Amino acid sequence: MNFEIQILGSGSAIPTKDRSLTAQIITAYKEPYLIDCGEGTQLQMRRFDVKFSKIKHIFISHLHGDHFFGLFGLISTYNLLGRKSTLNIYAHKELEDMLLCENSPLKIDELVFDIKFHHLSDEEKIIYENNNLIVKSFPLNHRIKTCGFLFQQKVRQPNIIKEKITEFNLSIQQILDLKAGKDIEIDNKLFPNNELTNSPPAPKSYAYCSDTAYFENIIPIIQNTDLLFHEATFSEKDAMNAEKTGHSTASDAANIAQKANVKQLLIGHFSTRYPNLNYLLKEAQNIFPNTILTEDGLVIEIS
Amino acid sequence: MNFEIQILGSGSAIPTKDRSLTAQIITAYKEPYLIDCGEGTQLQMRRFDVKFSKIKHIFISHLHGDHFFGLFGLISTYNLLGRKSTLNIYAHKELEDMLLCENSPLKIDELVFDIKFHHLSDEEKIIYENNNLIVKSFPLNHRIKTCGFLFQQKVRQPNIIKEKITEFNLSIQQILDLKAGKDIEIDNKLFPNNELTNSPPAPKSYAYCSDTAYFENIIPIIQNTDLLFHEATFSEKDAMNAEKTGHSTASDAANIAQKANVKQLLIGHFSTRYPNLNYLLKEAQNIFPNTILTEDGLVIEIS
Repeated sequence: MNFEIQILGSGSAIPTKDRSLTAQIITAYKEPYLIDCGEGTQLQMRRFDVKFSKIKHIFISHLHGDHFFGLFGLISTYNLLGRKSTLNIYAHKELEDMLLCENSPLKIDELVFDIKFHHLSDEEKIIYENNNLIVKSFPLNHRIKTCGFLFQQKVRQPNIIKEKITEFNLSIQQILDLKAGKDIEIDNKLFPNNELTNSPPAPKSYAYCSDTAYFENIIPIIQNTDLLFHEATFSEKDAMNAEKTGHSTASDAANIAQKANVKQLLIGHFSTRYPNLNYLLKEAQNIFPNTILTEDGLVIEIS
Repeated sequence: MNFEIQILGSGSAIPTKDRSLTAQIITAYKEPYLIDCGEGTQLQMRRFDVKFSKIKHIFISHLHGDHFFGLFGLISTYNLLGRKSTLNIYAHKELEDMLLCENSPLKIDELVFDIKFHHLSDEEKIIYENNNLIVKSFPLNHRIKTCGFLFQQKVRQPNIIKEKITEFNLSIQQILDLKAGKDIEIDNKLFPNNELTNSPPAPKSYAYCSDTAYFENIIPIIQNTDLLFHEATFSEKDAMNAEKTGHSTASDAANIAQKANVKQLLIGHFSTRYPNLNYLLKEAQNIFPNTILTEDGLVIEIS
């Protein structure tokens, strides 16, 4: 398991018995990352046995309450549990202003651990990077400033075929050159890289787009993504509501998925008005067949 | 059912799978009142089918997050549902400052309904009253300003025995005098009130004391209460922790119950360190036998 998505909350702004508020865990190379943190996220993490003390990075798409009200309680719990490591929060600047102001719900300066705020901007931008992973934020089109997130595994180095190392008695420099993708010379003969190496698995990617109206600007950014989460608050028959509130219909989500040539589409953030979500699912599948519905607790491995 | 308590969250500051954060519904004469509103309260209300749109009065004991972080989401949901009636919030002034400040998590001035803030003081005080009910707040002893709440049914008027109205052809004035508890004269003969009336049922009462250290000042206020909820975060073997954090042990709660001569004691707000709460229950029952443990969803009718 290198890349896994777990849905903690699949509802929209009003929670129901079955659908909690927006939050997702992305696990990449055993590191969990949290996207959005609606009210009750820490309760859902308990419910689904997420090891939440391991989370070091939290990404908040926008400052509507259903996407961040759970931060207050989660931070309080980290504090009571004596957290030591720095918590990185990627959000619009207003969240830092809220948490650091005199009347903040939390006394940040009394916490036993540090919070580092990273501000989202209105341009596509790499906001986090480690040896294996890049996270980009990019603007969506909602009623307030909102960002989507793209999690991309880095292109891994080619694996050198073990037998070739001994066969050609490869030097460390030759190995490094092969790892860097270069062709190498052995005894004055040029060997193409792919004769001595196996290609690494293709890097995986996950895009998170919520909340947003239909917004074609994101298509080049999420092009060819393995899995796209795109909100589908409404059905096409309520397209007027979607337009008025800066949300998408299931058809909108499917059209984006199709135009961006993603491999799979995951829709969620459903309005409470639809008792039967298969209606939304079929609407999306008519345009983009490889679509599935989110539900609380759902785990999807990108393999 | 005139007076009923429902526990929505029975845990202390760190929620668990089974115990959500503090919140209780008091239903008196079909009107629901909410005491405290920890994170996830609106989710628990959905879970236990509480008609939460009917709540007009919310009482917040103190401003530690596990007692009020759920307010943000609940208010947002009321707003999305188009609430019309004013929401009364009884809390320390700092909550109003938090919600009305520039960097508030909520845009209070954009809500579609009004919120009326009522400030708790550091003296015993009637904070709400209607035809049937009085609610008093009174100071507890915690690390920050904290109030307990006493819900008391009003003493009801005597019921006039129907047959007596026709037998003596009672005038409206005579009926009013009887209702007011007076004896009346009929044909120059004095009739004691209790010959013409039935006594109403004794008024019921419920006291809520959380969070607090052992604090004897509350005893005269909650004297003879039918049901006392008293926090019991710790066991007596962790009394040092209780003292350090301004909390009570199960023994503390039971001693208060005994000295205040209440009819029944309900303990809750348990630290997560106790895997078996029967240990706390027995500790309390050794001092005050009529003690029960809270659990999420528990309903107790005071009859």
